Amino acid sequence: MKPYSEMSKEELRALREELEKQYEDVKSRGLKLDMSRGKPSVSQLDMTMGIMDVLDSHSDMRTEAGIDCRNYGNLDGIPEAKAMMGGIMGVPAENVIICGNGSLSVMYNAVASSMTHGVCGCKPWGKLDQVKFLCPVPGYDRHFTIMEYFGIEMINIPMTEQGPDMDLVEHYVNTDPAVKGIWCVPKYSNPQGISYSDETVRRFAALKPAAPDFRIYWDNAYAIHHLYEDEQDEILDILSECEKAGNPDMVYEFASTSKISFAGGGIGVVAASLNNLQYIRKWMNVQTIGYDKVNQLRHVRFFKDMDGLKAHMRRHADILRPKFEAVLNVLERELGGLGIGSWTKPKGGYFISFEAMDGCAREIVAKCKEAGVIMTNAGATYPYGKDPKDSNIRIAPTFPTPEELAQAADLFVLCVKLVSVCRLLDQ
Amino acid sequence: MKPYSEMSKEELRALREELEKQYEDVKSRGLKLDMSRGKPSVSQLDMTMGIMDVLDSHSDMRTEAGIDCRNYGNLDGIPEAKAMMGGIMGVPAENVIICGNGSLSVMYNAVASSMTHGVCGCKPWGKLDQVKFLCPVPGYDRHFTIMEYFGIEMINIPMTEQGPDMDLVEHYVNTDPAVKGIWCVPKYSNPQGISYSDETVRRFAALKPAAPDFRIYWDNAYAIHHLYEDEQDEILDILSECEKAGNPDMVYEFASTSKISFAGGGIGVVAASLNNLQYIRKWMNVQTIGYDKVNQLRHVRFFKDMDGLKAHMRRHADILRPKFEAVLNVLERELGGLGIGSWTKPKGGYFISFEAMDGCAREIVAKCKEAGVIMTNAGATYPYGKDPKDSNIRIAPTFPTPEELAQAADLFVLCVKLVSVCRLLDQ
Repeated sequence: MKPYSEMSKEELRALREELEKQYEDVKSRGLKLDMSRGKPSVSQLDMTMGIMDVLDSHSDMRTEAGIDCRNYGNLDGIPEAKAMMGGIMGVPAENVIICGNGSLSVMYNAVASSMTHGVCGCKPWGKLDQVKFLCPVPGYDRHFTIMEYFGIEMINIPMTEQGPDMDLVEHYVNTDPAVKGIWCVPKYSNPQGISYSDETVRRFAALKPAAPDFRIYWDNAYAIHHLYEDEQDEILDILSECEKAGNPDMVYEFASTSKISFAGGGIGVVAASLNNLQYIRKWMNVQTIGYDKVNQLRHVRFFKDMDGLKAHMRRHADILRPKFEAVLNVLERELGGLGIGSWTKPKGGYFISFEAMDGCAREIVAKCKEAGVIMTNAGATYPYGKDPKDSNIRIAPTFPTPEELAQAADLFVLCVKLVSVCRLLDQ
Repeated sequence: MKPYSEMSKEELRALREELEKQYEDVKSRGLKLDMSRGKPSVSQLDMTMGIMDVLDSHSDMRTEAGIDCRNYGNLDGIPEAKAMMGGIMGVPAENVIICGNGSLSVMYNAVASSMTHGVCGCKPWGKLDQVKFLCPVPGYDRHFTIMEYFGIEMINIPMTEQGPDMDLVEHYVNTDPAVKGIWCVPKYSNPQGISYSDETVRRFAALKPAAPDFRIYWDNAYAIHHLYEDEQDEILDILSECEKAGNPDMVYEFASTSKISFAGGGIGVVAASLNNLQYIRKWMNVQTIGYDKVNQLRHVRFFKDMDGLKAHMRRHADILRPKFEAVLNVLERELGGLGIGSWTKPKGGYFISFEAMDGCAREIVAKCKEAGVIMTNAGATYPYGKDPKDSNIRIAPTFPTPEELAQAADLFVLCVKLVSVCRLLDQ
């Protein structure tokens, strides 16, 4: 197949007719698939069911230090969980606080407390005329939702293959005191699957923020979520890099077991300098007497240590890899060389990022929906839901079964072709 | 023994000498007991261990409606849990949202969201010059901490045996638009164990708030926490009373299983009108993808229904009743008729409230601490930690073993006597 851009109007018209016929045919099959969110699949969840056996009515519910996990207390979480979750992020246990059933609420609280009470003694953001956050794009919609909720202005920062455009990041952070934060998913980023290069991490650590209360929101959501055994991205530990660069308090790191154990039934954490943690404990202590230590205990008894976690994630990868590859194969086979789209080939994480021709994303997603396949809303990967080029589509291949995925991918490429042809004919 | 006030200086001096000797004697025993918090005891927690068996690796993790509790989704919580927790409060499932591992964070969030985003379309409290809350006293220190954190002015409302002084409540709520809320523990109140009379609840429901965004914070923490089978307090359902009185949106009700299953390992809930819930979902949806449904499922599979819950709480009562009675017996035996203190005799809940002679509470608690028994800080039951009469002490008899409790109660009454005698001699 030659690139669509080299086709004559006539060829395009014939192609459109053919594609429309195919589309009507698929539509009549009455598909009903949801590929909108990065949800673990049933077989992944089944893999964690052993966690339901590690505690029973005869279990000793105390930690090694003798903490009864069934009672109040220990705001920080149990030491064993702090060590295990620290291991996932590559930070010492003392820099970790275990929180609730996921990391989103911890990130939310970090922003919310900054709004009402300020960061480490600085003026509350809610009392400032302007608060801005940098948002590498495409990015994670739930980060952006927190910003919109608090009326924080978002500034798009383009992603490169090394991570966010650091020239721009340095420019904004080092010159504008209204810039109070940046959202990062540094490893297998959502949705592109890009991992930040060592140089990127070091440039982050070496920032010289104009605002003393500037913080990097380092959402290390996919720290051990590799797809391949022999090709794994690793990133530098931002906490120690910041410390080395003389900026020990500049970062909050977040992680969770949402995509390791159960989504919503896991544990979320924040890691930061001891100084930051002292401030974080202040607002936590107003909100809660302590988080769910029984679930913390369950997690450490099940996973035991990093070896246990890694073995578990290898089994996840065995399920996810074929799904990613199935989608990538369809994309390559059906769209390769047509010049109507490009896509990422991540080595981990939960998403494939697709770049359609400018102005086509919204229509492609609408066409998929019309035929019964729900994709993430076009625009969702950008602040305010506004993709300036209307080109990015997030593909979430994790939840559907392989059969469903094949159907969905076939429909997706068909919609990409159809919308692209129409667009070319309109020009 | 005659009342201390009728003793001569000489008699008091002799008594002081004798009590000081006893005190030194107890001190030398090196007690180490913590009676500061309302924590369930180990035997109570043991009683819930069966909850660790209801889910194992072969369990069906889906609800009746087919929701997979291991995955994202269902912000409201699972229908079975909504029904069960609604049962505890006496409200329909549709008025309930299941939240995290306790109710404190839900109450915190209700206040926090009102500060930054306002209640149901009203101006955010953070943008007002003055925000006030009524605080029936003595009350629960963690309510007051939330107020202090947000700089909300607290107004003391004396408790009567029927609940808060409703003349005062009506005066403030109906005339001052800065009054935005009131903290209530309507059943077996913390710390007095008072349950609001029907008239009190009806007067609450019939309030005509000067502020349209006034809300009653109805912390129904001890809804099914009776001590006696044949003498149980019941209160009217505030939600339906408010609806009948034409104030359907005036109340947020909170509850949890913290003192039913595990403290910190339970489930917390909010109940409110459908209109309020729509607003509540808005801020919840920014904070979380959903709460821990696995733990919700575990709770409903274990407790099954109200009958299961009631049977469980009867077993709790069998443990707690002797503890309450042991303390009450020591108080009666040692302090009865002396005129140096009075105390409540609750039929449920977690506390006994002790009223010392004016100006003695702080010193009694200090004396106890010096001899190795930690009581709740004097003043903690009042806003800003300031008990104007320095007379209230919260006794938390639930956690210690009966033997420890006997020792602690003996020390307590000794300290009450000693401090009271000294005070009378000082006058």
